[in-house]
Amino acid sequence: MANQATLDAAFAACAHPIRRGIVERLATQGARGGEGLSVGEATRGFEVSKPAISRHLRVLEEAGAIVRVIDGRTHRLHLAGQPFEDAEDWISALRAMWERKFDVVEQFIAESREGARDGEGSK
Amino acid sequence: MANQATLDAAFAACAHPIRRGIVERLATQGARGGEGLSVGEATRGFEVSKPAISRHLRVLEEAGAIVRVIDGRTHRLHLAGQPFEDAEDWISALRAMWERKFDVVEQFIAESREGARDGEGSK
Repeated sequence: MANQATLDAAFAACAHPIRRGIVERLATQGARGGEGLSVGEATRGFEVSKPAISRHLRVLEEAGAIVRVIDGRTHRLHLAGQPFEDAEDWISALRAMWERKFDVVEQFIAESREGARDGEGSK
Repeated sequence: MANQATLDAAFAACAHPIRRGIVERLATQGARGGEGLSVGEATRGFEVSKPAISRHLRVLEEAGAIVRVIDGRTHRLHLAGQPFEDAEDWISALRAMWERKFDVVEQFIAESREGARDGEGSK
């Protein structure tokens, strides 16, 4: 399981529509491996200032969600899967916890009902 | 698929260790359905101020991750699954996008190799 700071960064990276939009674009354009996308290609059309875009890219980079490869004057962005897997793992573990507990509660309810029925039957 | 604001709130709710800790405690203590936990039970042992705890609870409530039921002087907290499912769904959709694209890249590489082998065979 990822450590706390890693998980904080992974979830924070996902917590803004522009960051999710950039990530989705990288995912659909085959930027995991391959050529990646230039910063312009990855961020075109989001209606915010360049400094805002830079901040979003920095958040994504710090989370390890994107990797920037500098090739002369072109910065190419690649998607990295790890933070999304870490986030997914945490949610799965949470689900396992609550479903286990929920099963216990449901079993208890089922047993109580059976008990109640048995009680009625013996009246 | 959840809307953008809902997803922002879901991911932001997960982006702090104390909030994840509270959610994990609610999940393991059967607070989805059932009695829930009092605020004290849900937040005991996190070494931050009461106002900080209140802010974390507010973030979780605004995301719909916890529901507070007020019973006289006791506030009982219940875990709600929806935001975690929304977050998981978004990550799954992202994974599907990049795997599809990745398949295309791998197929292209495989075909290129086959092409190269065929070329060698005909020498």
